[in-house]
Amino acid sequence: MEEILSAAYPFWERLSDEEKAQILKGCATVTYEKGSSIHRSDMGCKGAILVLSGLLRVYILSDEGREVTLFRIHAGESCVLSASCLLDSIQFDILIEAAEEARAIVIPSGVLHPIMESNPYVGLYMYKQATERFSDVMWMMQQILFMGADRRVAIFLWDEMVRRNQPVLSMTHDEIARNIGSAREVVSRVMKYLSEEGAVALKRGRVEILDKEKLKKYL
Amino acid sequence: MEEILSAAYPFWERLSDEEKAQILKGCATVTYEKGSSIHRSDMGCKGAILVLSGLLRVYILSDEGREVTLFRIHAGESCVLSASCLLDSIQFDILIEAAEEARAIVIPSGVLHPIMESNPYVGLYMYKQATERFSDVMWMMQQILFMGADRRVAIFLWDEMVRRNQPVLSMTHDEIARNIGSAREVVSRVMKYLSEEGAVALKRGRVEILDKEKLKKYL
Repeated sequence: MEEILSAAYPFWERLSDEEKAQILKGCATVTYEKGSSIHRSDMGCKGAILVLSGLLRVYILSDEGREVTLFRIHAGESCVLSASCLLDSIQFDILIEAAEEARAIVIPSGVLHPIMESNPYVGLYMYKQATERFSDVMWMMQQILFMGADRRVAIFLWDEMVRRNQPVLSMTHDEIARNIGSAREVVSRVMKYLSEEGAVALKRGRVEILDKEKLKKYL
Repeated sequence: MEEILSAAYPFWERLSDEEKAQILKGCATVTYEKGSSIHRSDMGCKGAILVLSGLLRVYILSDEGREVTLFRIHAGESCVLSASCLLDSIQFDILIEAAEEARAIVIPSGVLHPIMESNPYVGLYMYKQATERFSDVMWMMQQILFMGADRRVAIFLWDEMVRRNQPVLSMTHDEIARNIGSAREVVSRVMKYLSEEGAVALKRGRVEILDKEKLKKYL
């Protein structure tokens, strides 16, 4: 257990032996069934989650109940937004669910809180991770909101599929970017998003359209 | 100077005497003319800015050059996003300009960087502030993504009325549009609708809130 925690959390080496012992005593390995809700603003504050296997999905809900995926947490990754009570000034209601059956180590907020108070490296890690996640999300929102990047990529894929009359396009992200007047990084990010949504599958130098209906949503 | 810095930066009391001396020696008081550009991704990394007087505006640009205000930095507030080179994984291009003539104390990145490496409280403050700002911005983006335009305009008018504590806003539709990430035409249409409903009166470059209760219906 200690090996897993120390590999995942860079603050581990900065903890005192007592702080380590408190976390090891307080943390728990949990299994989440596929589709189960892990975090909601009205569920209280779970703590830091380290995914061992499976996949978690972090998303927000619109007034009309529309879901927008912000990001996914893969095996080996941790998430601190499920400990949002420990992070001042997060006024953003996020939800977390198990997109696949998942096993995770949870360090409960009650265990983390006093250590965060006494050891600045723990808070530093948590706010740094929150900044990183938010920066990613804002970048994506900016593309979607202002640039229409998702739409431009989807339209291009759709048109090419129709033109070639086949769902596999042998094109690199760089070629697609040049076709739609965007940057490779932007196309790669949108592609990653579309593949996580199950609309396309990405292979080296190739894009396969898996689900026309899902792709159509972005047109 | 030390008094101002120690009041603004909660990490001040955690600095060693040497670290304090380095910051005091390295920081500079700067005056920005109204409209001048303070931070752009291609301008390099300025450092932490503490606004003494005036007003800074943090915004992003779309491909078409449309500006969207993310937030404003008032006197007494600091901004660390102008030191984004010191924050890992911020891949978000923000711009900062002086919305009014402003005086500020700048702690240059070159001064801050070694102190941030050796003293975790400095990074903790910076990432905490970045998390806070991003959380605010994401909240705003969520409003833009999910909310109807009428509601967005009404919320903006309401918030400005409360903030300024007066019912007359000297703002053009274009300025309001840029503030809520919308288009001038959309704002003008909503304004016409709200004025026909008797909630507001429109004058050239001015909006007067006539009926709070009517405006409230749209919040």
